[in-house]
Amino acid sequence: VVHELRARIRELGVRLGKYAPGAKNAITDVSGVRVGQCTVRRGASGPRGSGVARTGVTAILPRGPQTFHERVYAGCFVLSGAGEVTGLTQVAEWGLVETPILLTSTLAVGRVVDATVKYMLRHFPTIGGEHEVIIPVVGECDDSWLNDVASHPIEDAHVFEALESAGDGPVAEGCVGAGTGMMSFDFAGGVGTSSRMLPGGYAVGVLVVSNFGRLADLRVDGVPVGQLLAPRFEGTERRAHVHGSIVAAVATDAPLGPPQLSRLARRAALAIGRTGSYAAHGSGEIVLAFSTANPVPRAPAGALPHGSFLLDAAIDPFYEAAVEATEEAILNALSGAHEQDGVEGHVAPALPLGAVREIVAAYAEQKEQLRARRA
Amino acid sequence: VVHELRARIRELGVRLGKYAPGAKNAITDVSGVRVGQCTVRRGASGPRGSGVARTGVTAILPRGPQTFHERVYAGCFVLSGAGEVTGLTQVAEWGLVETPILLTSTLAVGRVVDATVKYMLRHFPTIGGEHEVIIPVVGECDDSWLNDVASHPIEDAHVFEALESAGDGPVAEGCVGAGTGMMSFDFAGGVGTSSRMLPGGYAVGVLVVSNFGRLADLRVDGVPVGQLLAPRFEGTERRAHVHGSIVAAVATDAPLGPPQLSRLARRAALAIGRTGSYAAHGSGEIVLAFSTANPVPRAPAGALPHGSFLLDAAIDPFYEAAVEATEEAILNALSGAHEQDGVEGHVAPALPLGAVREIVAAYAEQKEQLRARRA
Amino acid sequence: VVHELRARIRELGVRLGKYAPGAKNAITDVSGVRVGQCTVRRGASGPRGSGVARTGVTAILPRGPQTFHERVYAGCFVLSGAGEVTGLTQVAEWGLVETPILLTSTLAVGRVVDATVKYMLRHFPTIGGEHEVIIPVVGECDDSWLNDVASHPIEDAHVFEALESAGDGPVAEGCVGAGTGMMSFDFAGGVGTSSRMLPGGYAVGVLVVSNFGRLADLRVDGVPVGQLLAPRFEGTERRAHVHGSIVAAVATDAPLGPPQLSRLARRAALAIGRTGSYAAHGSGEIVLAFSTANPVPRAPAGALPHGSFLLDAAIDPFYEAAVEATEEAILNALSGAHEQDGVEGHVAPALPLGAVREIVAAYAEQKEQLRARRA
Amino acid sequence: VVHELRARIRELGVRLGKYAPGAKNAITDVSGVRVGQCTVRRGASGPRGSGVARTGVTAILPRGPQTFHERVYAGCFVLSGAGEVTGLTQVAEWGLVETPILLTSTLAVGRVVDATVKYMLRHFPTIGGEHEVIIPVVGECDDSWLNDVASHPIEDAHVFEALESAGDGPVAEGCVGAGTGMMSFDFAGGVGTSSRMLPGGYAVGVLVVSNFGRLADLRVDGVPVGQLLAPRFEGTERRAHVHGSIVAAVATDAPLGPPQLSRLARRAALAIGRTGSYAAHGSGEIVLAFSTANPVPRAPAGALPHGSFLLDAAIDPFYEAAVEATEEAILNALSGAHEQDGVEGHVAPALPLGAVREIVAAYAEQKEQLRARRA
Repeated sequence: VVHELRARIRELGVRLGKYAPGAKNAITDVSGVRVGQCTVRRGASGPRGSGVARTGVTAILPRGPQTFHERVYAGCFVLSGAGEVTGLTQVAEWGLVETPILLTSTLAVGRVVDATVKYMLRHFPTIGGEHEVIIPVVGECDDSWLNDVASHPIEDAHVFEALESAGDGPVAEGCVGAGTGMMSFDFAGGVGTSSRMLPGGYAVGVLVVSNFGRLADLRVDGVPVGQLLAPRFEGTERRAHVHGSIVAAVATDAPLGPPQLSRLARRAALAIGRTGSYAAHGSGEIVLAFSTANPVPRAPAGALPHGSFLLDAAIDPFYEAAVEATEEAILNALSGAHEQDGVEGHVAPALPLGAVREIVAAYAEQKEQLRARRA
Repeated sequence: VVHELRARIRELGVRLGKYAPGAKNAITDVSGVRVGQCTVRRGASGPRGSGVARTGVTAILPRGPQTFHERVYAGCFVLSGAGEVTGLTQVAEWGLVETPILLTSTLAVGRVVDATVKYMLRHFPTIGGEHEVIIPVVGECDDSWLNDVASHPIEDAHVFEALESAGDGPVAEGCVGAGTGMMSFDFAGGVGTSSRMLPGGYAVGVLVVSNFGRLADLRVDGVPVGQLLAPRFEGTERRAHVHGSIVAAVATDAPLGPPQLSRLARRAALAIGRTGSYAAHGSGEIVLAFSTANPVPRAPAGALPHGSFLLDAAIDPFYEAAVEATEEAILNALSGAHEQDGVEGHVAPALPLGAVREIVAAYAEQKEQLRARRA
Repeated sequence: VVHELRARIRELGVRLGKYAPGAKNAITDVSGVRVGQCTVRRGASGPRGSGVARTGVTAILPRGPQTFHERVYAGCFVLSGAGEVTGLTQVAEWGLVETPILLTSTLAVGRVVDATVKYMLRHFPTIGGEHEVIIPVVGECDDSWLNDVASHPIEDAHVFEALESAGDGPVAEGCVGAGTGMMSFDFAGGVGTSSRMLPGGYAVGVLVVSNFGRLADLRVDGVPVGQLLAPRFEGTERRAHVHGSIVAAVATDAPLGPPQLSRLARRAALAIGRTGSYAAHGSGEIVLAFSTANPVPRAPAGALPHGSFLLDAAIDPFYEAAVEATEEAILNALSGAHEQDGVEGHVAPALPLGAVREIVAAYAEQKEQLRARRA
Repeated sequence: VVHELRARIRELGVRLGKYAPGAKNAITDVSGVRVGQCTVRRGASGPRGSGVARTGVTAILPRGPQTFHERVYAGCFVLSGAGEVTGLTQVAEWGLVETPILLTSTLAVGRVVDATVKYMLRHFPTIGGEHEVIIPVVGECDDSWLNDVASHPIEDAHVFEALESAGDGPVAEGCVGAGTGMMSFDFAGGVGTSSRMLPGGYAVGVLVVSNFGRLADLRVDGVPVGQLLAPRFEGTERRAHVHGSIVAAVATDAPLGPPQLSRLARRAALAIGRTGSYAAHGSGEIVLAFSTANPVPRAPAGALPHGSFLLDAAIDPFYEAAVEATEEAILNALSGAHEQDGVEGHVAPALPLGAVREIVAAYAEQKEQLRARRA
């Protein structure tokens, strides 16, 4: 398969928000965070039962492999709960993430939880003995329009590969890892990431598995790109009975505590809305946020550790950065994803980059003209 | 004071979303809903302590004066809890509103609750005797940048006037009622309303008291109007230490139950984000939603009444309508509000309608050209 | 009126839990906390409309008068939301209390909010100008079975008296302040308090306004006192259509943060259940918790203050103490309250102390015998 | 292994609450509900790594095998979120359960989710094609003190056996199914069930996997049984660093909707408190509630089905029944569980039935004497 060369949304001329991205414009700009992915792509398009696999696993390790002993503060927000992130109840209660965060296909959640348990037991054999048991954090979107989910394509080895290949470099986007069979706004979607740098040197990074939205609703920095592209895709078969889901992970190395992180997660949801979501009934839209600062040791000395937390009075830039990076991550998922075929002859077209570039340029020029006229 | 003639955002060429508004394009398009307002405007601009009043009360009666006996199903969503709607705990628990909903200035909440209790006791003298006591639903935004809040301008009579003048006709917008001293995006803001009609003849209507946002963030249907207007207002004094709040009431005559209404309220929050909010730390952003269908009698016969509720599978259009109407209601608050002076020489400029009309037209033309080129 | 001499439940032989109470066995054992009360008792029993007042105001000042500038971390839990604590939305969002906490009669909430605003403006005239506006925290229970609520007995002066008389000494219990017209388990109820001292010198203190429960359900440290007393009160008129409410405030001087305090509040709810509540539909059961450690200044220097917070791993004793002190506070409200008459000839009998003492002693002896036999 | 003959707590003379149990005094008294269990018990006591299995799976089928097409209304309450029930986010959002509910060991959750997916795909092959994917509801407690969790004892076949053996008869209690390796109050614990019949012929049934609590805190209908038994077990090795968890499922055939069911779940939490829980930091205490009335078809005809729901005004007996049945279910888990050995020589003693019977009888006699004296 030869794919059109893909791009990041920024390369198409889109400048979202006011803060600059980090060096990688990825969640890995947040110090400590590593990402690994395993893409499971098997078989040419065929009927259900033929074992066509368009799926995978994406792993986020908040403080690399040490997250079990260096637990990170976390929070979450459920914009629409028609989805699943295992372990979310405990995240909400304790405000901690103590395992890697994994993303995958809905029907593979059990398998991925199970493989993560095995991985953790291998690396931390005191689990279940000296140390308490763990509850992995595994989120999902539904890739069943392209992926033959009933064939159970995800195996333990895929999870291990995602976890063990995790690094802090650039992050592949689009139809990779958990994003392989995902769709957004009726285009191929999947994994997207972005980051923002804030005064004080703090980073906010976001990684999404984007699988939601309807073509006509797509907005790129406010521009109604979906409406403009819609005629071109008239007659294209689309998945109908659901509008998918999105799981977003927001990371920061700023010293935020659990309630602040939950509020950060809530702001990321606004970005989902800005790209065109109205949080459809069937669309699970869940955001997890964590901070790599102030790790909480598993066996701390004393009951009263000292720490520094950002004052709420200084938190607004983080809210803005979370909105900006989430919006850009979703668009990167689209611009990074190539056309994807799957079961039953289904095809998810790629977002047409040339057209988007042209539309965005026209709007930018219009804005510039208006700005000049008003000055 | 002679004000520039104000307009509704739709009259400036803005067409938000895909559903048509109702006859009044107001929350009163929802059958049963009445709105009354009392504007408290007193004194020319002067220092704090001089008693300058720029404030008021807006009342929403879900089923007119009968709401006490014909309680309505309700839900809510708190996007940012830096604000107050009294009675919200009970709304969340019981899923019912059984009093009028009032909106006012933050420091007047107590007074308005108290006056509402008096009003209810006068109309329903069995309260506290044969019938249980009631907890009025009173929301607020902070108008202290224009209004001399320490002078306690709101009195019982203002609350009674708002309640007793309530009607089901068009709703005055901008600097009226609770909106009198409110600001949005550094412009005069205040009361705004809008509605949408859905298949089946159902209406979704929204009324907001809009008091949030920063100029540069304002978006009108995605168009970065705030950025384009910003140079013109450089040097204008703005309120700094807070970014205000918004309280939105979403009404429908469709038969939705409490969890559905809470979810509707959550979608309205997405619209707040689309206009430019990132839910600043100091900005309380609270949405209440209710249905005038299926009223719950205070003394029902039997324990098992029959009812019809909309299936969740049919709810998406309501989510979209809530987003559309909330976005338009916020913009109507801006386009409806005239320049407003207040304490300490503060002045909230009016949204410049001509400039907005021009910008919106240019973008619409741009879109039309792109659409033609793509066809 | 000459009342039977009242007692604290501990004086009747009840020893709840394993931690010792503080010196005052009151919320004021928590350093910084002050309590003030104003009892409004007027008129002999008469019909509604005769202005019989059995009501009042109780004020808790978390860090005395300085709470506005030394805001305290706070959390909350709503066991049953059929009640009201104004400002709760903001407490839940920011995790802060920045005003006194007031408790009163349901229909007086507006009046008390309004008077508290006046009090705050008088003491902190920068509110609404240099400083943001405030949202007072005012909780309620419904005293309308005894109190002629329609006569609006609470006035500003009562609120001021409660606030200005606040001290850190012993706290009057039973039919005083907000508790004046309250009932619990069909007995006169009202204000109760208790505390526990924990290793490290930390205190946990609780104050309740107790107005819930049905006679037959009353348990005293597990002993079915209600069932044993029930025959004696057969035929006594009881309020019927509601089972009241309870608002509890849990205070500690241990360095707990907002999520920890919300969890502490949740444990206090278990104590409400232990005394005999099943959280009846009409009974609002709301708990607020705050810590006087780590005050958050209104205008902090820098964005990254250092602080020490208790590790979750050390929190269990606080949970136990919250359960113990809440259970004892509720029982103190009962044992401290004398017989109370009110409107329409209603009479709330006093918990018969002699009988309780006798029952408790019999059970204690039984337990001692069993313990001896088993040893 | 020859075990002491076990009993139900009611057979020991305990009469909890005022409503009568159903015919089976089990969750299966609720029409439609089926329960199946698979006990996995392997190997004599040995060190970790020796593969000692003391674990299993318990399955609850709300409307038998048809739950996928006849989805049931559901709600939930998290008293302490230090645990996991997968799918809870969706239950909270949609208010529906559409899969069996499974209970198991913490580290087996992934395996059980995966096996349930396989089971569902086999029975409903349209999942992932014509029908949306599903998210199984799988709850857990931690049995690692007795069970060698690292040996991954649970396999797909165990899950299938639990599901396929499900019936509507009496339910085995104690160390069976998911309860096999569980402990409560330092005794062997596990599965317990109970029910209550209400006016109108409705049933409320509860099934718990009980794995929480500390010996000294155990209360049986208020009687401090734990304190009285404590001396006898002095020196017994106990698990230390956690206090376990409890997952409770509350079922009813009364027509309750999702918010009512969530509130029912909240009341069940009070019962957990009554038996002696203070919801320790490490103890996940999660309640799920569902109604078998008003099933929601997967492909309903029309958007406005008619239904009958219980009025909130009639709900109190259900709250009381949920408290009573949950308390009794927990005690049944204890009285039903025999002594259980496990890894590393750990032994969970059985609750000594004779002693409990004796204590309960002494207290009952005491109560009778006091009642007689007071009459």
